[in-house]
Amino acid sequence: MDDGCAWATSTCPEPSAPALAPAPTPAVDAPRSPTDDDSFPALRGFCDGVPAADEAELEERRARAQRRLADAGLGALIVEAGPTLTYLSGARWGQSERPLLLILPASGEPAWVGPAFERQRLEELVGARARLLTWEEDVSPYGRVPAALGELGVTRAARVAVDLDARGFVLEGLREVLGARRVVGGAEVIRSCRMIKGARELARLRRANEATKAALREAAARLRPGMREDELAALVRRAQEEAGLTDIWVLALFGPNAALPHGTRERRALREGELVLVDTGGALHGYRSDITRTWSIGPVEDELRRAWDTVLQAQSAALAALRPGTRCAAVDAAARAVVERAGFGGGFERFTHRLGHGIGLQVHEEPYLRPGNERALAAGMTMSNEPGIYVPGRFGVRLEDIVAVTEDGAEVFGPRAQSLERPFG
Amino acid sequence: MDDGCAWATSTCPEPSAPALAPAPTPAVDAPRSPTDDDSFPALRGFCDGVPAADEAELEERRARAQRRLADAGLGALIVEAGPTLTYLSGARWGQSERPLLLILPASGEPAWVGPAFERQRLEELVGARARLLTWEEDVSPYGRVPAALGELGVTRAARVAVDLDARGFVLEGLREVLGARRVVGGAEVIRSCRMIKGARELARLRRANEATKAALREAAARLRPGMREDELAALVRRAQEEAGLTDIWVLALFGPNAALPHGTRERRALREGELVLVDTGGALHGYRSDITRTWSIGPVEDELRRAWDTVLQAQSAALAALRPGTRCAAVDAAARAVVERAGFGGGFERFTHRLGHGIGLQVHEEPYLRPGNERALAAGMTMSNEPGIYVPGRFGVRLEDIVAVTEDGAEVFGPRAQSLERPFG
Repeated sequence: MDDGCAWATSTCPEPSAPALAPAPTPAVDAPRSPTDDDSFPALRGFCDGVPAADEAELEERRARAQRRLADAGLGALIVEAGPTLTYLSGARWGQSERPLLLILPASGEPAWVGPAFERQRLEELVGARARLLTWEEDVSPYGRVPAALGELGVTRAARVAVDLDARGFVLEGLREVLGARRVVGGAEVIRSCRMIKGARELARLRRANEATKAALREAAARLRPGMREDELAALVRRAQEEAGLTDIWVLALFGPNAALPHGTRERRALREGELVLVDTGGALHGYRSDITRTWSIGPVEDELRRAWDTVLQAQSAALAALRPGTRCAAVDAAARAVVERAGFGGGFERFTHRLGHGIGLQVHEEPYLRPGNERALAAGMTMSNEPGIYVPGRFGVRLEDIVAVTEDGAEVFGPRAQSLERPFG
Repeated sequence: MDDGCAWATSTCPEPSAPALAPAPTPAVDAPRSPTDDDSFPALRGFCDGVPAADEAELEERRARAQRRLADAGLGALIVEAGPTLTYLSGARWGQSERPLLLILPASGEPAWVGPAFERQRLEELVGARARLLTWEEDVSPYGRVPAALGELGVTRAARVAVDLDARGFVLEGLREVLGARRVVGGAEVIRSCRMIKGARELARLRRANEATKAALREAAARLRPGMREDELAALVRRAQEEAGLTDIWVLALFGPNAALPHGTRERRALREGELVLVDTGGALHGYRSDITRTWSIGPVEDELRRAWDTVLQAQSAALAALRPGTRCAAVDAAARAVVERAGFGGGFERFTHRLGHGIGLQVHEEPYLRPGNERALAAGMTMSNEPGIYVPGRFGVRLEDIVAVTEDGAEVFGPRAQSLERPFG
């Protein structure tokens, strides 16, 4: 039938988010590494002891969102299945043409609105005690929302914030039943909650990123000349699996292929004197890692070494600027200035992308460290610090750590790169 | 860095579409089947000889969309990365916080708007001759859209249709730069093109669904008592891979687990006398299959057999109603009436979901065969025909074929189920 998404034995088709490649080959099917050994026993248990969010943590999050709603004079927040719904409830549910909505009023318990034929699976998801309203297949998925708001005590005069990560047709469907003037964008309410991580969220991000770094170091030890990008990627994936991460992705680029920050279609075999760039991550209880290291397996030309050293210095400059009160743009500028002073060009010339992105339940979320972003940093924000230098046709260098803003500076999760000879710290 | 999405060696993190399960285990990692053999040599080459869309086919599609725009008095259509963008251009690109937009004017060549640091990858994607406008990281992704429309000859007075599968923040971003009154929903324009399949699209859907049926028959031949749902799912997946499909998903449910159309969390081992329900599909050049079969490996109670026979009759009744001009709701009603007459309850009582969904580049797309949908069928539409009967705690039966509406009736892709003893035809 239907979306074929089940807990037990399926993976979900995700028609609304096609993969990038025409026919992505799972890394587990990729050719084996020449080492003939893809197990990493030393990494087993790495992520043990870090718990997922419990009901108390989820309740705190909802209470925080409710305070924000009340402060903004909003009656409720409506969220579609996705990371914000997971943040507020712990529940994970795929997006399909049948939307699942969470309605959080400014005070009191939330309600859910979802398809009737999924009632039992939805009860497994949200708990049998939760207020769950369902619609049959012959009516609009949004028809019950106005009454649901009323039952939750939201007055008809109160405006309602809607998650702007919801798909356009959901947003428009809600506008239709609530009236366009009653619906406002919920991005700022959501952002203000999710951007500031609590201690338990930080613990998950810390361990996830330490695990990716440990896995990368172990996998890199098995890199040999002649190995292909996809073979190294398979090792990096396997190492993170053994460390206990899920939802793993790997980008492995050799030599000139790394000059494109997100790679190209070609699969290259490693030659002596080339730089290796691996950008990879996974998730621990939904919290993401995202680490990049660039290194070599032998001597490289002076210019490559100079670019590497410059990127490390740029990363250090950004790290020194990372503290509460600093504007996002100023952190980006601190790194960009180092690259420019070293003669690699200003602006986006060789350092072609922003310095970093927030990270949490999404790999990319607010705040973004980019020119033009005047947002001030605050303790509890977490983000990537990832300057890069890219010379088309020749090489690319990027070093990426995940950092948390603390009361008086920043904490880097896991060891920093030390030098081209000690890229894993 | 950044989304880690590359052509070469990575799979994409899809933060906006979390998987359903907390830690989905890829079926390839599932325990091996007791048969010790998961190769299906007879299926190799099954999908050979069916080509992907070439430039001429893509151009025809764009011309069709342009006629619809002109007919509706619209100046252009703006589409975000996703199935409609693939339909119009052949390009596949992941969604991230940096949107990729395709602008199709009512006449003339299209333009693309995407992130500057991805320029080379975007040129690989859209062709070096395409009109590509890019934005740097310090400005709005939507800022270049008004000027792009002007360059394409779209007057400032002309309204612009926006893909409502685009995410809410993209829709709102476009409203901001274009003015809310200039933006209209593009769902009907898109639907009217994508709903009617051309001969080459039908060839892909036909072969993909035949392949899934052949794979299901081969995998079912290896089913034994005691096998677990995930073991059967792994076989079904492997068989479809060998047949040449990609993007495979499998739902395998035994006994009472099948009473929930989308399953439950439990993984069950098969017992004698139980029904087996498998719902599965994949893709051929992006075109989807979606097939369900219910069967048993031994005798079953009379009531289960009667439910099975009723579902087959309901499917036959729907098939007889499927022809140009029939309303979607009437096809659903034809199947539902059979279930009711057999004493399994009316409405959504035991047949808990709609009869079917359109299928093409998405597993679920318009038109939906459901009560209340007054849309008339037309030749070239393709959809699932999948009645079911579900008795909580006891069993579930569903039979699903994909059909195409023809000039004077309907074509079923691949053999129909014949009886509980001959479920694969």
